[in-house]
Amino acid sequence: MRTRFGDMNKEDNMPDIRHRVVISAPRESVYQAVATKEGISEWWTRDGVRGESSEGSRLQFFFGQPEPAAVMEITQLDPNSHVSWSCVEGADEWVGTTIGFDLTESDSDTVVMFSHDDWRQQGEFMAHCSARWAYFLLSMKSYVETGRGTPFPEDLKF
Amino acid sequence: MRTRFGDMNKEDNMPDIRHRVVISAPRESVYQAVATKEGISEWWTRDGVRGESSEGSRLQFFFGQPEPAAVMEITQLDPNSHVSWSCVEGADEWVGTTIGFDLTESDSDTVVMFSHDDWRQQGEFMAHCSARWAYFLLSMKSYVETGRGTPFPEDLKF
Repeated sequence: MRTRFGDMNKEDNMPDIRHRVVISAPRESVYQAVATKEGISEWWTRDGVRGESSEGSRLQFFFGQPEPAAVMEITQLDPNSHVSWSCVEGADEWVGTTIGFDLTESDSDTVVMFSHDDWRQQGEFMAHCSARWAYFLLSMKSYVETGRGTPFPEDLKF
Repeated sequence: MRTRFGDMNKEDNMPDIRHRVVISAPRESVYQAVATKEGISEWWTRDGVRGESSEGSRLQFFFGQPEPAAVMEITQLDPNSHVSWSCVEGADEWVGTTIGFDLTESDSDTVVMFSHDDWRQQGEFMAHCSARWAYFLLSMKSYVETGRGTPFPEDLKF
C-alpha cells in the first residue's frame, strides 16, 4: 500500500492530482478538519457527510442529490499526521482512486500535501477535479484559520 | 509539437498539471486576459510583465525581485483559441516545461483547459505550483468576469 505522499517516484504511470497548501494552524486543527465529519462539512460539503470516520468504515458525501456523490472507505487515520480514503462508489472516474492528506509541521504552520491518485486517464473531468480540489483545500485553509470555509453549496461554481 | 490540450493520451510519462475552469465570458475576453501583457498583469502578476507577447518572442514575469521569476517563449498564439508558452528561464524545475491555455466555447461561457506539462518529476514544488495555478486561474476568472483579479502581490499566500 502506498501510504505517504513522500513516495513520489512511483512505478506506475497513472496520472495523479497533487496539491500543496500551507495552513497557519497546528496539525491538530488541520487533522480535525480532515478526519472528522464535522470538520469535513465545514470545507467540502455542508449538504451531508454521513457514516463513520474510522479506519475500515465508510463515509458518504452528499452534494445536493438524494444519493451520495461519493462513498469513501477510510483506509488510514494516523492522528495529526495522515488520512487516506479509497473511493468505492461515485463517478466512474473516481471509483478505485485514492485520496490522501499528509500533514507535516513547518514552524508554526501545517503543510498539507494532498493527493488524488490512480486515475485511469487524464481528461477534462480530472482537470475539473484538480481545480476543484485546490479550491476546496483553500476552503479548508480558510475554515481552519478563520472558522469559515466555503463548502458546497456556498462554493464558487466553475 | 503537442499543441492541444485534447491530446491527452500522450506517450511520455512525464507528470503534468491540468486544470479546467469555466469563465462566464466570451472567448475574446478570456483570450485578451491570456495573450496580452495587460491582461496577464491583472490576474498573475501586477509586479511586471515585460517583453512582447507575439509568437517567437519572450515575456518576463516579475514577482517582487529584480530578476524575473520566469521567462517564457511564446510558442503559439491562436486568436481566441490557444496560447502556449515554453519556459526558458526561471526555477530549475520550470525550465523546459510548457504551459498552455486552450479556450473553447460552451453556450455563453468559455472553458479554459490549462496545462503545465513535462515536469521531470513530481514533488512538493510541483504540488505547490498546481495549487497556485488553480488559484491564479480563479483570479483570471474573477478578472474577466468582474474586472478585478488577485494577481501578485495581492494574492493569497499559501
